[in-house]
Amino acid sequence: MTEIAFTKSNTLGIMPPEEQLGFGKYFTDHMFTMDYDPENGWHNPAVIPYNEYSVLPAAMVFHYGQAIFEGMKAFRTEDDRIIVFRTKDYLARFNRSADALCIPNIDIDVVTEGLKKVIEVDKAWVPTKVGTALYIRPFIIATDPYVGVKVSDTYKLFILLSPVGAYYAAGFNPVSIKVEDKYVRATLGGLGEAKTPANYAMSLRAQEEAKKEGFAQVLWLDAVERKYIEEVGTMNIFFKINGELITPDLVGSILGGMTRRTVLELAKAWGVKVSERRISVEEVFAAHEKGQLEEVFGTGTAAVISPVGELSWKGKKITINQNQTGDFAKKLFDTVTDIQYGKVEDTFGWVDEVTKI
Amino acid sequence: MTEIAFTKSNTLGIMPPEEQLGFGKYFTDHMFTMDYDPENGWHNPAVIPYNEYSVLPAAMVFHYGQAIFEGMKAFRTEDDRIIVFRTKDYLARFNRSADALCIPNIDIDVVTEGLKKVIEVDKAWVPTKVGTALYIRPFIIATDPYVGVKVSDTYKLFILLSPVGAYYAAGFNPVSIKVEDKYVRATLGGLGEAKTPANYAMSLRAQEEAKKEGFAQVLWLDAVERKYIEEVGTMNIFFKINGELITPDLVGSILGGMTRRTVLELAKAWGVKVSERRISVEEVFAAHEKGQLEEVFGTGTAAVISPVGELSWKGKKITINQNQTGDFAKKLFDTVTDIQYGKVEDTFGWVDEVTKI
Repeated sequence: MTEIAFTKSNTLGIMPPEEQLGFGKYFTDHMFTMDYDPENGWHNPAVIPYNEYSVLPAAMVFHYGQAIFEGMKAFRTEDDRIIVFRTKDYLARFNRSADALCIPNIDIDVVTEGLKKVIEVDKAWVPTKVGTALYIRPFIIATDPYVGVKVSDTYKLFILLSPVGAYYAAGFNPVSIKVEDKYVRATLGGLGEAKTPANYAMSLRAQEEAKKEGFAQVLWLDAVERKYIEEVGTMNIFFKINGELITPDLVGSILGGMTRRTVLELAKAWGVKVSERRISVEEVFAAHEKGQLEEVFGTGTAAVISPVGELSWKGKKITINQNQTGDFAKKLFDTVTDIQYGKVEDTFGWVDEVTKI
Repeated sequence: MTEIAFTKSNTLGIMPPEEQLGFGKYFTDHMFTMDYDPENGWHNPAVIPYNEYSVLPAAMVFHYGQAIFEGMKAFRTEDDRIIVFRTKDYLARFNRSADALCIPNIDIDVVTEGLKKVIEVDKAWVPTKVGTALYIRPFIIATDPYVGVKVSDTYKLFILLSPVGAYYAAGFNPVSIKVEDKYVRATLGGLGEAKTPANYAMSLRAQEEAKKEGFAQVLWLDAVERKYIEEVGTMNIFFKINGELITPDLVGSILGGMTRRTVLELAKAWGVKVSERRISVEEVFAAHEKGQLEEVFGTGTAAVISPVGELSWKGKKITINQNQTGDFAKKLFDTVTDIQYGKVEDTFGWVDEVTKI
């Protein structure tokens, strides 16, 4: 077992009331950090006070975007255990993102150990209400103080913890989505399947324009033909057409979401017909025309399941399931969250008790 | 005129011998900074010691890549004046990049004032030998401490100064370039025309693989058809075919380089036939086959002109101009640098004396 250094914060914060948490605004008292250099590899694992970080303005992350991140969650169960969802799977994806950005892989066991330690130290920050969670943000940045394009020699890893409120505090609210036909998020041969800042920088203009037009998010199309569906702003997307659950296959420009994988595994276990394949906007609109488009929903770590009530493409708008949350989306949401909050037995091996990971 | 605050550094560094400068490794004693928030806009312009910057690890730049930069140069003339090349043109591009990343525009006059002040304070760091320069790195980062994808409300601007050595200390050295057919840098509808970290993050894997194969850089193709030439790793590209100077037109996925523009303006002034148009790799290889490919060279702020001696595409390699620097490339290099070092009169209005800008 790796020795994780610990420096206790002198000042401890107070968690706001759970209904005021929102998303990503508050951070716990401590964070986990680790350093990388070529001589020592990843070293110096430590839980330290969450505080300002001093870095030279020449650090490469500011200039050339060599960085990756993850987004995971821990939950407090009714019997007061704290569990993390799919720890190793998220951290394995972290290493796949690292490969895409030429960043040295982490030792998943050491980082899991650090994660466990920082959650234990800050366990008072794990909210209690159903729907709330402790959002976990591991990230790595390139730190060489050098203003020329190259792969950095040095890196810093952080894990931040942020208590977050219930995404659906006011109940499920199907969203209106714009099929984006001007901007492109990612292309084959690019970084679309990595969780890296570049992909999110790409999305800002489109997201701003869609918001002004009254849409919650955009649905990205492929860069080449501009007809095949890729993913939503911060979620993967699923279509239930004539009883079949369809989601775009991971061709290389799409992020392989962990909730996407969870949904696929659940649906298969339930005996639902599941297809990961290319699907065009035209096919979706044609299915709607024929009355076969039963449900559309996004999947992501933040919302788990986000029902889509309207899809707009080149000015044409379709309404899905009378703008109501579908039964299948609801069943998925309930099952995933029941497992996450320890209400039902996890037969998939998805949850890790913090005291046991 | 804007009041620029000034805090003098307590410790002054010593510039290494000019032949040891290299590129982007050393920084001067001071930097220019400015802050943005919605209430005050861009405010607090200041020349302060170059030092570590304290920032919350939750700052959005680390997670979502909302950032832009520029790369400019100042030169010391033989009669000891310091001149900056195309100041307003670079800063106008900085604002175009800002638009693409949803970052509030800067006031070019205020930033020019700050640039002038920080160069004056650190003027001892402007090297003297021909070929050396003071590299100028303005950049802006998103600073909201928030881990959710959105446009930041707050930003910080920096201008760093870095004395750099002669790029061609040992004389022109034509480079070997790989036409990249696996990875893609940018796509229409993406951020290719902005100077933003995302584009450089995209390039790392391809650049690493090309380096291992013995190439200096990669030549990017378009994302859709994978046949039209876009740009080199950190340069724009020009072809001289049968007396005509050809460079890809700025379709939206290509950075509009300042040296590219300088070369186009010079060539037109000289009466050379110039085309900005789509050009495929096939056309270039066919021109070589017919003996009409006279010269190939890259253009960029760092190298000014970088002759290309070899081009390799899908395993087929062509040698250009016997792997020697062409006369046209040489004439361009000499003319641009003569203007930059104040050796000949600037009839284009490109140079700004620091004491006069």
